[in-house]
Amino acid sequence: MAHQAFDPGYGDEPFRSLASDFPGEETYPATAFRVEWGPVFHRGRLDGSARVVVIGQDPAQHEAITRRILVGAAGQRTQGFLAKLGILTSYVMVNTFLYSVYGQAGGEGHADDPAIATYRHRWLDALLLDQPVEAVVALGRLADRAFHTWKATPTGQQVQVGYQHITHPTAPESSAARDPERYDQAMAAMLANWNTALHQLEPAMQHPDVDKDLVEYGDRLQSDDYAPIPAGDLPAGLPAWMRSRAWAVRRGETDDARRATIVVTVPRAARPWPTGPTEPTSDGPRR
Amino acid sequence: MAHQAFDPGYGDEPFRSLASDFPGEETYPATAFRVEWGPVFHRGRLDGSARVVVIGQDPAQHEAITRRILVGAAGQRTQGFLAKLGILTSYVMVNTFLYSVYGQAGGEGHADDPAIATYRHRWLDALLLDQPVEAVVALGRLADRAFHTWKATPTGQQVQVGYQHITHPTAPESSAARDPERYDQAMAAMLANWNTALHQLEPAMQHPDVDKDLVEYGDRLQSDDYAPIPAGDLPAGLPAWMRSRAWAVRRGETDDARRATIVVTVPRAARPWPTGPTEPTSDGPRR
Repeated sequence: MAHQAFDPGYGDEPFRSLASDFPGEETYPATAFRVEWGPVFHRGRLDGSARVVVIGQDPAQHEAITRRILVGAAGQRTQGFLAKLGILTSYVMVNTFLYSVYGQAGGEGHADDPAIATYRHRWLDALLLDQPVEAVVALGRLADRAFHTWKATPTGQQVQVGYQHITHPTAPESSAARDPERYDQAMAAMLANWNTALHQLEPAMQHPDVDKDLVEYGDRLQSDDYAPIPAGDLPAGLPAWMRSRAWAVRRGETDDARRATIVVTVPRAARPWPTGPTEPTSDGPRR
Repeated sequence: MAHQAFDPGYGDEPFRSLASDFPGEETYPATAFRVEWGPVFHRGRLDGSARVVVIGQDPAQHEAITRRILVGAAGQRTQGFLAKLGILTSYVMVNTFLYSVYGQAGGEGHADDPAIATYRHRWLDALLLDQPVEAVVALGRLADRAFHTWKATPTGQQVQVGYQHITHPTAPESSAARDPERYDQAMAAMLANWNTALHQLEPAMQHPDVDKDLVEYGDRLQSDDYAPIPAGDLPAGLPAWMRSRAWAVRRGETDDARRATIVVTVPRAARPWPTGPTEPTSDGPRR
């Protein structure tokens, strides 16, 4: 028998209502958001055990398939960041936007839309008011704005909590994917920013899952700096490879086809069947 | 705001344990089952309100993405069959196998594997013992065998319930997809089999969701004979198009690549964005 924990999801209030009544296309225009993939709500603890709330930006292709946010590269880097604070499972994450951002504007034009904020505030209220959360971490500028918008509400004003805005975990890819030199600079700048944030956050973390000395990032991400998504964060039955690798891409010959298509591929190392010797390969040695 | 019901899933026992401890590759060999996509457990009511239990065969590509069984063509035909009995939501479905069958043998060689049956019996016990279920419907020969194997257990012997074994809803595709004449014959034979079963089942259905006169199938499936999967059967946030169309295919240039890949495509009619006039089309008229 296999044992695999899973996230029980949205069975209890207020999450049951939040997951059945949510802003749709009337609030998130299809020209700026990929509403066609449906909303993706959260990842992590909804049982009141979270000590850190992470605010991300928007879900992408891995998240459209797993139906939890921050599962792909950004999520695995965030998971590594939390691990440096001794936080292995005591977190919960929500995004600025329920739907994936589409187009160059990157959601910028909708950062202050009241209907988007009103619903997001219901999540933040549920996760932060009268909860044992010790710190909030915002990933990127729009998430920072989302936090401050909420903090100015009557509920937000009641909540005292540590707070850090950090560079978004895939900012280097967004700003400099095709220029190796600029990419390295952007990565080093991000990790320096993260090191500063870790030192700021550490005193706030009174109840980490494990006690450990803070080990700073170097100039570039090491493989240890990625942490796999815990099984208990994903819905029941999802295969383990969905938690630790890149396995979903948008693909198509036209913009339209690319927007309409997600290709899911079991990573080579996770294939349990015997593979033939003559198969063309692109992502690893033949075996 | 959008309102969309969802399946709250496996939060309560015994389903919480069934969804976290399940047979893996030690029980389902990777040569005969697509274990790499993870187990897919059920679809429908787990709250004791089911009046019909459906036993299917195995999940396929749509089910690997939605994480609920009988969602694709077989599921939409089954949904239509239940609707003819007035059963719109009061059902629950489990499969003979947790994983998709791989290869020509079609699971035949594993139909009686004790470890597969032992776990399946725990589901059937939970869904049938001391429950208000009025009928069990088995889809295809292996599901029929699964029911009778369970019925011979001490628990199965305690349960009195109507039962019908019907032709599997995609049997015409399996046996005659490339021969239109034989396909039409297989379809007509299946629908005649289903009509007989409907008449047998009708007296057992004492508490249908709606009262309606039984309308038989004709010689071929009409579009009304497919019923969409209710929103309340799928996990939170899944887009509506995942419940009423074909949108997932296995694709690859080698057997290996095809086994490793599922392509998910938003159906043309469900795309909310404006599409360009010059795009090449394959599944409908240009617009």
